[in-house]
Amino acid sequence: MEIKLGEIAEKIGGKLQGKSEKIIMKAASFINAGENDITFLADKKILKKIDSVKKIGAVILTQHLFNAASFDNTIIVDNPKFAFAQTISILHPQPKLNPQISPDVRIEKSSIIGKNVTIGSFSYIGKKATIEDRVTIYPNVFVGDNVTIGADTVIYPNVVIYAETIIGKRVIIHAGSVIGSDGFGYVHANGKHNKIPHIGIVQIDDEVEIGASNTIDRGALDKTWIQKGVKTDNLVHIAHNVEIGENSLIIAQVGIAGSAKIGKNVIIAGQAGIGGHLNIEDQVIIGPQCGVSKSITKGETVSSTLVQMPHKTWLRVQHIIPKLPEIKRKIDKIEKKLENENESFN
Amino acid sequence: MEIKLGEIAEKIGGKLQGKSEKIIMKAASFINAGENDITFLADKKILKKIDSVKKIGAVILTQHLFNAASFDNTIIVDNPKFAFAQTISILHPQPKLNPQISPDVRIEKSSIIGKNVTIGSFSYIGKKATIEDRVTIYPNVFVGDNVTIGADTVIYPNVVIYAETIIGKRVIIHAGSVIGSDGFGYVHANGKHNKIPHIGIVQIDDEVEIGASNTIDRGALDKTWIQKGVKTDNLVHIAHNVEIGENSLIIAQVGIAGSAKIGKNVIIAGQAGIGGHLNIEDQVIIGPQCGVSKSITKGETVSSTLVQMPHKTWLRVQHIIPKLPEIKRKIDKIEKKLENENESFN
Amino acid sequence: MEIKLGEIAEKIGGKLQGKSEKIIMKAASFINAGENDITFLADKKILKKIDSVKKIGAVILTQHLFNAASFDNTIIVDNPKFAFAQTISILHPQPKLNPQISPDVRIEKSSIIGKNVTIGSFSYIGKKATIEDRVTIYPNVFVGDNVTIGADTVIYPNVVIYAETIIGKRVIIHAGSVIGSDGFGYVHANGKHNKIPHIGIVQIDDEVEIGASNTIDRGALDKTWIQKGVKTDNLVHIAHNVEIGENSLIIAQVGIAGSAKIGKNVIIAGQAGIGGHLNIEDQVIIGPQCGVSKSITKGETVSSTLVQMPHKTWLRVQHIIPKLPEIKRKIDKIEKKLENENESFN
Repeated sequence: MEIKLGEIAEKIGGKLQGKSEKIIMKAASFINAGENDITFLADKKILKKIDSVKKIGAVILTQHLFNAASFDNTIIVDNPKFAFAQTISILHPQPKLNPQISPDVRIEKSSIIGKNVTIGSFSYIGKKATIEDRVTIYPNVFVGDNVTIGADTVIYPNVVIYAETIIGKRVIIHAGSVIGSDGFGYVHANGKHNKIPHIGIVQIDDEVEIGASNTIDRGALDKTWIQKGVKTDNLVHIAHNVEIGENSLIIAQVGIAGSAKIGKNVIIAGQAGIGGHLNIEDQVIIGPQCGVSKSITKGETVSSTLVQMPHKTWLRVQHIIPKLPEIKRKIDKIEKKLENENESFN
Repeated sequence: MEIKLGEIAEKIGGKLQGKSEKIIMKAASFINAGENDITFLADKKILKKIDSVKKIGAVILTQHLFNAASFDNTIIVDNPKFAFAQTISILHPQPKLNPQISPDVRIEKSSIIGKNVTIGSFSYIGKKATIEDRVTIYPNVFVGDNVTIGADTVIYPNVVIYAETIIGKRVIIHAGSVIGSDGFGYVHANGKHNKIPHIGIVQIDDEVEIGASNTIDRGALDKTWIQKGVKTDNLVHIAHNVEIGENSLIIAQVGIAGSAKIGKNVIIAGQAGIGGHLNIEDQVIIGPQCGVSKSITKGETVSSTLVQMPHKTWLRVQHIIPKLPEIKRKIDKIEKKLENENESFN
Repeated sequence: MEIKLGEIAEKIGGKLQGKSEKIIMKAASFINAGENDITFLADKKILKKIDSVKKIGAVILTQHLFNAASFDNTIIVDNPKFAFAQTISILHPQPKLNPQISPDVRIEKSSIIGKNVTIGSFSYIGKKATIEDRVTIYPNVFVGDNVTIGADTVIYPNVVIYAETIIGKRVIIHAGSVIGSDGFGYVHANGKHNKIPHIGIVQIDDEVEIGASNTIDRGALDKTWIQKGVKTDNLVHIAHNVEIGENSLIIAQVGIAGSAKIGKNVIIAGQAGIGGHLNIEDQVIIGPQCGVSKSITKGETVSSTLVQMPHKTWLRVQHIIPKLPEIKRKIDKIEKKLENENESFN
């Protein structure tokens, strides 16, 4: 694709500084941008590398960074990263699929399929399922009975959506994710673990994006609820009855145990684990690998990653950690002793 | 569904206290239970919330809790949670599938299919596979050559069962799980990692339930063995040659390295990791995120989660942890010094 | 299969000590090897168990171990494990599939399919995809538009390969893995998380083996790059723009955040997490569950697993850890005080 810089500036609502006629052919990272590429600058630090970079087609940046730098062609905006995301969409539009239902699918007769729906080969749509307008379902997807999928939602290949699940509009679910499997619930009796039937559902609201190979369990009796605008990364586990509030971000390999309630605009970093029945309030930030065992109040930032150290150091450290209570007692004793001595000396 | 309370009491073998004719329509959580719902009470603490809850149809509870509370309609049992699980099954029976083999499956000719088997669209059954009576295979499942699946087992969509796997009776495998993939085994020679062919199998015994998106590798030479009644949550990794004893519970995102042996009635909490070749004896309990690097004897409970702290605290803590050996030396020195001083003073 | 020991010795280039005519029927682990089995010995420690083991058909070992032991039939080699891996291949050859494209697949017309390709039932091959000679694609695989799959590569069932992905020769991808999903990239504006379109790709070089249920995200603008000979275990997450150098080993459930660069011959143990934009140089070894938050220079070994301790100990330890800064201050104060006192006493 070829597009003039002036046209991009207009579309993203930025102020052009440079040649309006300049031809831009693709979006690129700052480090790889060439003569016909557009990129963005969000951070002053990268400016130091400018001498070594080759000629860049155009740069999207703030007024502040514009003043500090000296590029030939720029677009000045308030939020360069956002403007750049828009620019990528302009230069690299998603290929428009011709909406069609492949002949090699199975759609149960009692289901309702909207207008301009795409359903790929070998996908299965269960009984009384509702697929709204302009939904895209890639190949090899399973949509269970009574599932609803809202308009403009995209379901990538090999996603499994168990019966009764409710999915909103403009949702994206990446490949391999499993929505609505039974929660992990048993009751011990007669010498074995007896399964508790899971009759709840999963509800995913509008504009949620679910990463690849997530597992989101259905509620035991009520619902597991992923609210509007939540984004999850890959391999995230969300147990039965969990609620995640609007616009929260859940990074890869996080696990959220049963009935935990996550507020709005929460960020949970990779591989963190949230205990069952906890209440994580709005705007909390949880560090990577953090083990969350108590509820967290609004706006708090918590961490607990045990970060890397040289292996030899760690060999000794790991032996000392279980002795910390003993070490603490020793110190308290020494402290007391010194206080007493001081008194006797005074 | 409508059912009389007396009928439920009879079916679950409980003692009715209240109106036998009371109509019950569904099972619900205590907090959401309405006038025609049945719920259960397992914990005294919830009683404090009673004033604020609306009228409940009926409550399943122990004699002890019955005495402490004052509900109009109750069923008294020894194990309310178990009785409630049974009640859910009565009120919300799984929809009976009409057993049938969808026309759009591929079943290799040399396979043996039992009576009343269900096989969903686009599933593949390999050569010499044996599918016993009343097995349910959802759409998009892959069953490799020579696999055996025992009677009444349910395989959810997009499960992959590699060749030679043996699966018992009344097993449930949730969507997306992979059973029998090659273990992670290489030998370094000639400047690269050479694959060790994996000719072992996976054996899953009766009444096991495997969560969504598990990965269970086949043995290198022998078998990976999941014994009777084991339940695994989602995204669990079980490496080659692992054995898991009867009725053990493996929570979400646990990883068990090669040749580890897990006993009976073990509980491994979420995100824990078990090192290779370890021996975890019966009735052991392992805490969440725990790093298990040594074998554990019968009945022990171990933990090591590094729990959340305020981010600012953690910033300092993480710098001190590698210095613990030095700190310990300091304390020992101070202690010694004080002892010596004391002696010289005495 | 039956094969004479002398023939095995010849094929693996080892020195026979014992009966050349000895019939060997299968490969087995040392502990389970019987009279007609071949096994290997890599470690002196196992020799202590010899008295208790039954007669072994033949043992592959080093000259050194040969001198220490007394088996009837042996093959002496430099690298017994490697020789044994070769022996498994001889005794248990992979069943040769008759290359064929199942009639129940969908292959878009503009794709290019090489010679002797196998494509299993219900697999989908997108537009302009290139499948080179002797590729094996199992059932239920999705291959997106413009994907290239190199010669002799094996793709197991239910793998999803998003559009534009480049896969090399002799690659193995295990079941359920997702290659090329969008990275986790958003920009906050107008009160929500706006998706950054991901126009990069994933490139997987020759002889890579990807475990089951991995998720490998495509680059944002550039590529996510898994270089020659890399092996990943199950449930590994690799984020956008990550690079992994030749012959590195990534164990199960590891997560690598965006733009991290992993060198050659690196080993990352299970459940470790690598932070974004870090540079892990060649030959680094990272311990299990390790939280890597800083770059690591060539050849270093780092760890940080918090290992198991009795639950009661841990209950106290976890309260002390956040107090470490305070404890350290106390010790420093005591130390100083003692120094001062000493001075005043001197």
